[in-house]
Order: sequence, then C-alpha cells, then structure tokens
Amino acid sequence: MEKPAYVAVDWGTSSFRLWLIGVDGGILGEHRSAEGMTTAASLGFAGVLQAHLDSLSVPAEIPVIICGMAGARQGWVEAGYIDTPTSLGAILTGAVSVPGQSRDIRILPGLAQRSAEAPDVIRGEETQLLGALAGESQGEQIVCMPGTHSKWVRVVDGMVTGFSTFMTGELFDVISKHSILAQAIAGAGEPDGAAFKAAVGAIFKQPAMATSLLFGARSGQLLHGLSPSGAKAWISGTLIGSEITGALSSAGHDARITLVASGGLQTLYETAFQCLSISYQTIDADAAVRRGLSAAAKAIWPNDERTVA
Amino acid sequence: MEKPAYVAVDWGTSSFRLWLIGVDGGILGEHRSAEGMTTAASLGFAGVLQAHLDSLSVPAEIPVIICGMAGARQGWVEAGYIDTPTSLGAILTGAVSVPGQSRDIRILPGLAQRSAEAPDVIRGEETQLLGALAGESQGEQIVCMPGTHSKWVRVVDGMVTGFSTFMTGELFDVISKHSILAQAIAGAGEPDGAAFKAAVGAIFKQPAMATSLLFGARSGQLLHGLSPSGAKAWISGTLIGSEITGALSSAGHDARITLVASGGLQTLYETAFQCLSISYQTIDADAAVRRGLSAAAKAIWPNDERTVA
Repeated sequence: MEKPAYVAVDWGTSSFRLWLIGVDGGILGEHRSAEGMTTAASLGFAGVLQAHLDSLSVPAEIPVIICGMAGARQGWVEAGYIDTPTSLGAILTGAVSVPGQSRDIRILPGLAQRSAEAPDVIRGEETQLLGALAGESQGEQIVCMPGTHSKWVRVVDGMVTGFSTFMTGELFDVISKHSILAQAIAGAGEPDGAAFKAAVGAIFKQPAMATSLLFGARSGQLLHGLSPSGAKAWISGTLIGSEITGALSSAGHDARITLVASGGLQTLYETAFQCLSISYQTIDADAAVRRGLSAAAKAIWPNDERTVA
Repeated sequence: MEKPAYVAVDWGTSSFRLWLIGVDGGILGEHRSAEGMTTAASLGFAGVLQAHLDSLSVPAEIPVIICGMAGARQGWVEAGYIDTPTSLGAILTGAVSVPGQSRDIRILPGLAQRSAEAPDVIRGEETQLLGALAGESQGEQIVCMPGTHSKWVRVVDGMVTGFSTFMTGELFDVISKHSILAQAIAGAGEPDGAAFKAAVGAIFKQPAMATSLLFGARSGQLLHGLSPSGAKAWISGTLIGSEITGALSSAGHDARITLVASGGLQTLYETAFQCLSISYQTIDADAAVRRGLSAAAKAIWPNDERTVA
C-alpha cells in the first residue's frame, strides 16, 4: 500500500472533511462528519481531530494541513487573513502552526478585501480557489464557488484582485422557512426546471428587481396557479440569477469562468449559466479543495519526502 | 355634535383600524386593534366589527365601507380583484356587499396584474392609492406605499397601468432574525443615518448586487468595526435602496413621485429619496386610506344625505 504523506482537512462552520493522502497523491482514507467549527468549539478541536486520525490509524509523524473556519477567531487557532490584492502563492505561505501539539498541524489563512466600499472576507474558499486554478494563471479568471455564502473571486494574471460574497444559499433558506413564501412552497416536490429558468431570465433582464421578483412566487400562485415546486424553483432561480448577474456585471468580456461545485448546486448553476449563454468550465468542489490543500502541503513541507510526490 | 355618516375600516392581515366619519367629514371616533384578518378569521369577522361599532355606539343604519385583507379569499367575503390596466374609479364601483347583515357593509376589491412576466396583487393599498391621488390625474404618477410588502403603483392620466410588490419589510425582518446577520445587529441602538445612506448609495450604484451588499453588514463589522446599529442601518438601506432603484428603473423622467407613509418608515424613505436626489411629495398613510374610503363611500351611497358632505 502507498505510504501516507499528510492529512488534508476542510473544516467548515458545520462540516468536517478529512482525507489521508499518500506519497503518490492517492486518497488512502476519507472521513466526513457534522463536527464543524460550531460543534468542535464545544467538544474541543484537538480531540475531534485526534479521534478521526486514530480511527484511520494515522502515524504520529504525519502532518496535518487545515483550511476553513477552524482558523477563524472563534475557531481553533486564528489564522488571520491575507489582504487583497495578493498572489495566489501568498495563501500557501501564510499558514499558522497549532501550538502545543506533538504533531505538525497548520491552518491556512483566509482572504480579506479591506476596501471601504466593499469589505469582504473568505475563509476556506481560498483553498478551493487555489485548487481550481492550479496551473492556470494567464488573463482574467472568475471563479464561482456557490453555497450558503457564495464566493466569486476575480484573478488577473495570478493575482487575486477582489471578490464578492453573495448570501444566496442562506437567503433561500430563511425566505423558504420564515417568510410568507413558505406557504407558497409547502409540499414542493421535484425541481421545476421551467420555473427556475424563467426566474433566471427575469432577474437578468431586470437586475434591480430582486426583492420584487421574489414575490412572484406568491402572486404567480394566486394568479397563474404556479405549483409549490414551481414557486420553490422561482425563488431559487431569482436568487441564483441575481448572484450571477451581479457577479458578472464588472467582469471583462474575455474572462474565463470556472464553477467550483458538485451535486445539486452544480446542476442549478450550470442550468443558469446555460440559460444566460455564459461559457464556463466546472471543477468538482471536493477535488478543488483537496488539490488546494495538497499544494499547501507541498509548499509548507517542500523537503519532506512524504509530500513531494 | 356632527351626525355620523358612515364607518370606514382598514382591515389588514394583522391590524384593524376603524373610523366613524361624520356628515361633514369629521372623525367622530377611532379604534385600532390587532384583530387583523388572521385573528378575525378565528374570532369571526362580524363579531369583531360589531364589538367595535357597539363600543362607539354606532347606530344600526350607519353603513360600513371596508378595504384590505377582509376581502381576501381567506378573509370575510371575497371581494375579488380589478384587473390592470384600470381606471381608479373602477375600484370604487367594485365593492361587494357582505350578505346576511342587517347593516349595509361593503368590502372593496383589490387589484390584479395578470401578465405572465409580472403577476402581482394588491389588497388594501388600492384604497390608499385612491386617497393619495384624489383630484390629481394628469401625466405619470408613481405612488410608493412602503411596508411589509411595499407597493409601487404607476398611474398615467388616471389609469392604473401597473404595479410591483417589493418584500422589503418582510425581508428585513427575516434576515435580521434568522440569518447570520442577526449576530451583526444584536444590541443595535439608535438608527445610524450615515450607514443607512452609504448603503442606499451603494445599491443605487450597483443595483444587481443586493444579495452581496447585504453581507457587508457582517464583513463591515469584521474588517471596519461597523457597530450593531450601523449593521442594522446597512441592511435597511440596502433593501430600501434596492426597492427604490428597482421601482424607478422603468419610470419616466417627468413622473411625479408620491410617498404614502408615516412615522419611522416615512423618515427612512424620505432620507433615501434625498440621498438619491429624487423629488417627491409625502402623504400621511392614515389620511390617504381614510380619504380613499371616503371616496368609496360617496361613490357607493351617492344619494345618501349622510355621505355626500
């Protein structure tokens, strides 16, 4: 069997993902759990990590590279932020060591955009970004990482020039559960592709009408018999369409767009891009974060025979 | 004392307001309660109304004109919708009688915009609109009625040509209570006018960025020490600014803008209009709905000496 080289961990707010990587880059083991930052903060970060390492029998000398909310102020050890504009490489070298551990454990920093007009922060997605753009650095690239808080990053000739967070996933959640639109989507079944596409098209044509178009989920039901599935897809299409329209409003014509996603979100964003005739390439979200963590491991432990594969 | 002529009722989802109007148009009595449609649907609409009439000793022959959600399908008696485009006068003549009552009780209809692209409904605000525009009917008028679901109506030469609902008030509520931004505004005190104006200006410049600018309440706090009051004002300014920008995106240059509001909402919308150098006139929301109900009473009972004053 391939010898273990290092452990890569994506430690988000509500999820924990760990991979044991071999000297030849293979995945020797994988763990996923709901022990995100929120849970780990009460259980203890060191204990949560050690339990996962123990169950995969990871030797004591194998180092661990971590990205995500474990490096937030309210996380395990604060890993700070790298300020934009910055080279992608600066993320690799900004890792902090977790003190008091017998094992070598590093946490990667986030990114901060400190402008007065558009302050913004990223923590975790900078590592996905690193993985998504590995090897590509010419011209303008726009990277879309959808989720609870979707992140869009602009990279020009290998420099991260700026980024924006869109509250798309969280707004969908609170609107669906807590607003009058909850009635409209009660009992929703299979996704309604036609309603989704109609909403994406509508917000693209009228980008300032987001908070009005959302109400169409209710009025469409009152006046046109829109189904609960249609209402749900309409809300989703309005929010995702608003995000894409806003994010691309300042992008250049030649910008290459990369979608970092998987599963249902990948399908929704690809459908929206196709609706709007926007060219894109897709990279699997898990693969991107693993690739980013690997790049960090190789940069941090360059002379370690375990990580140079 | 002035003789009573009719009773005017604005019966919304969560509020009930009743005025006893005299033959000379004076307000002889006024009641407000939380017995909106939701409460009245379980208590019984007839009983709720009668209790208020009794406590003001309203004689049995005095008629009652009602607008609002009492006329919804889930209300007292369904009063239907008048379809746009429509003259303002059609609202006056579309009232339905409440059957089985010894007293003459009428409920005014709402407005429906049945277009496939922008289905929308109004119930209650059509009566405010009637009051706000009383006597004015030339050219293009845009009427803004802010609230839980803000309504913007376009009237051209006395015809209602279309309208839009914006979920501004409700979105502010669910975002403030249920999203990650709830942490950012916890402990907010006095309104922060500077943060409100900054947000209004930001969304006006980038109208497609609503769901991103909202996140500025959090990132502004992380990076620039934005206070909880500032974060709350930022969210409010983003949503109100988005509404105004969207609503006016299709308005003509010569359109006259009327704000129908009172209290805190009046202040916020006036501040936003001033920020954006938009000319407007303000009409008190209560006065507008009373004036609209009076116009309806005079149209419905034209030969009644009690209502012709």
